Amino acid sequence: MGDWEKRYKELDGEIRAKRPMIHHITNYVVMNVTANVTLAMGASPVMAHANEEVEEMVAFASAHVLNPGTLSLPWISAMLKSGKKAKELGIPVILDPVGAGATQLRTDACRQILEEVGPDVIRGNLAEVKILAGEDAAIKGVDSLETGEIPLDAFKELARQTSATICVTGPTDYITDGYTFYRVENGDPMMGYVTGTGCSATTAVAVFCAVGGATAESCSMGLAVFGACGELAADECSGPGSFQVAILDALFNAPSQNLGAMLRIEEL
Amino acid sequence: MGDWEKRYKELDGEIRAKRPMIHHITNYVVMNVTANVTLAMGASPVMAHANEEVEEMVAFASAHVLNPGTLSLPWISAMLKSGKKAKELGIPVILDPVGAGATQLRTDACRQILEEVGPDVIRGNLAEVKILAGEDAAIKGVDSLETGEIPLDAFKELARQTSATICVTGPTDYITDGYTFYRVENGDPMMGYVTGTGCSATTAVAVFCAVGGATAESCSMGLAVFGACGELAADECSGPGSFQVAILDALFNAPSQNLGAMLRIEEL
Amino acid sequence: MGDWEKRYKELDGEIRAKRPMIHHITNYVVMNVTANVTLAMGASPVMAHANEEVEEMVAFASAHVLNPGTLSLPWISAMLKSGKKAKELGIPVILDPVGAGATQLRTDACRQILEEVGPDVIRGNLAEVKILAGEDAAIKGVDSLETGEIPLDAFKELARQTSATICVTGPTDYITDGYTFYRVENGDPMMGYVTGTGCSATTAVAVFCAVGGATAESCSMGLAVFGACGELAADECSGPGSFQVAILDALFNAPSQNLGAMLRIEEL
Repeated sequence: MGDWEKRYKELDGEIRAKRPMIHHITNYVVMNVTANVTLAMGASPVMAHANEEVEEMVAFASAHVLNPGTLSLPWISAMLKSGKKAKELGIPVILDPVGAGATQLRTDACRQILEEVGPDVIRGNLAEVKILAGEDAAIKGVDSLETGEIPLDAFKELARQTSATICVTGPTDYITDGYTFYRVENGDPMMGYVTGTGCSATTAVAVFCAVGGATAESCSMGLAVFGACGELAADECSGPGSFQVAILDALFNAPSQNLGAMLRIEEL
Repeated sequence: MGDWEKRYKELDGEIRAKRPMIHHITNYVVMNVTANVTLAMGASPVMAHANEEVEEMVAFASAHVLNPGTLSLPWISAMLKSGKKAKELGIPVILDPVGAGATQLRTDACRQILEEVGPDVIRGNLAEVKILAGEDAAIKGVDSLETGEIPLDAFKELARQTSATICVTGPTDYITDGYTFYRVENGDPMMGYVTGTGCSATTAVAVFCAVGGATAESCSMGLAVFGACGELAADECSGPGSFQVAILDALFNAPSQNLGAMLRIEEL
Repeated sequence: MGDWEKRYKELDGEIRAKRPMIHHITNYVVMNVTANVTLAMGASPVMAHANEEVEEMVAFASAHVLNPGTLSLPWISAMLKSGKKAKELGIPVILDPVGAGATQLRTDACRQILEEVGPDVIRGNLAEVKILAGEDAAIKGVDSLETGEIPLDAFKELARQTSATICVTGPTDYITDGYTFYRVENGDPMMGYVTGTGCSATTAVAVFCAVGGATAESCSMGLAVFGACGELAADECSGPGSFQVAILDALFNAPSQNLGAMLRIEEL
């Protein structure tokens, strides 16, 4: 059994034993899906966004997801408030910068969260993370149109500047804390035909950070586990409808499916 | 055929014949799910939360669900407005006090709804209902951590004080109108791995109240039917993804599945 | 191969090749579902509703859906803003007047969108479209209770007055641009037991308008394709839960299922 496989068993066991709470402030499109991903992985979700309660609610959490996918001004202020509180309490904050670069509001909100909260992890697609790294990027709504080379150095630099672990997902995922660089090769093209796959990957990262800390290792594990469950689901499904069902079943059944042996994580 | 079985056939037949409208003001996470539960049971859902229209909308309804699971100030004021209107019109109001006790905002909002609206039914988990009954309770986000004895007397007292039927759900469900006490033993542990199961149980209660009135009998029936469909779904599923699909199918097919014989409702 | 079948192959191929972006401002209940319908059809969804960003976001789109199903004042103003911008940019605007006639707020909002935006397509149920055509209609929440004759002339008149293609859906769908009238006979009664079927039909219309323009032909095609996939799903399902899964699979697999031959579109 390899090191990753062993580490996976430990962390997965800890998640299912402790049921860490993951407080999401996320978008309307995926709330139900990411709550179900959280539960299927053995953790416990809560969704709460009112400025009047987020600081109290986040205190229960073991990880905090900020996802401005359907943002508006009161939601941004709630994210800033609860994000800061989470940092104060030492709770890992994971930012999913949905659509950064697509509109000024999104880019500004993500930059403001970066500056004022200082998230521990950023998980986005190639275009979104390039924008946050100060590079140009081709984006269309919330889709990355980037197909070129991965600017590994720019991502390392972003990680060092922000002290965040940077996760760039796509056909291959890249994860760096500014020093180590991991590559994850799990996943399936069917994931592109279901909404909220990226957001769910962020949730998977958050769940592993809740027990393993916001390290490049936890992030890589979360992405690899989610991708491997996507592979299992793709084997069973007849399309994106049955894929959605099958990936939740796979996440739930992971401990009995020898998932650890499927993880394809490599240090670059 | 027992009394409950006979009564179930009557009420279920009436629901599917009349298609009563259930107006929900509920949380973002479960809106789609509870709308589908309503439809699968043969009733008709509507979701509307604008302060400017809730009083007009609720007038179409045969039952009204108030669920502050992702509350904010304008939603609380809409719940108060439409709740009061429903009461004026004699439409049963069912409160699901999601996360009461977790934050001040939630506890206060639920107490305000109790006082100003006077719901006919309260359906919550053990911690939530204990909080409303003025007891201490261990809560973590929207999860009850209560494992101790069920304070039956406190719940009877709460029912008498509020003139509401109290439904406390968990592995066993307890239902009281302050005089009679029912226990429902239907359900399956898989229900804990799908988001919105509690909220859907509230919807099932509302659907039965829409035709049977907000009695302890209607509430027990709603919870038993929902739990029995959970048992059927658990038999068919491979995890929480396929469970969600199967429970909607089971609710839809209930009339042809001899569901009445599965109901495990007992008077204490 | 008939004309419709040939035209279907062309448009469907164009959708999957170009992945047009469909910007939705839609209701909370169906956001996830309509995003998945968009993806399964080969297009790309975005959901964004903040007044501060909708004009920028809609500029990426090839079609724009306005659906006030869970409306509130800031969402109405966002719909007006982005709708006007879309029209300026020549992007087809599709209005789904959910619950027009049920409350004053909904009727007024839909009328205001009609007047100030001038949508290219209106897709509603019989009661909703009758209300917009200035007729009386029996409505209960968001359900049409209309069972009488279809007022074809009133719909033609509405189409001419508004310069919009009018789509009235139900067991049979009627589509007119004020001159030509099409009838679509695809669909299955199971569609009435799943929430968001009407909203998803609107999305299917928007996807075809994105490549074929907002014509009566594109609209008829969208409705027939969605209905035909409903027929395929109904053949496979055991209830509304499995139906939802199967219709997404069917939309995804349409090119390999000889769907063109199933379309039942007729000129009146």
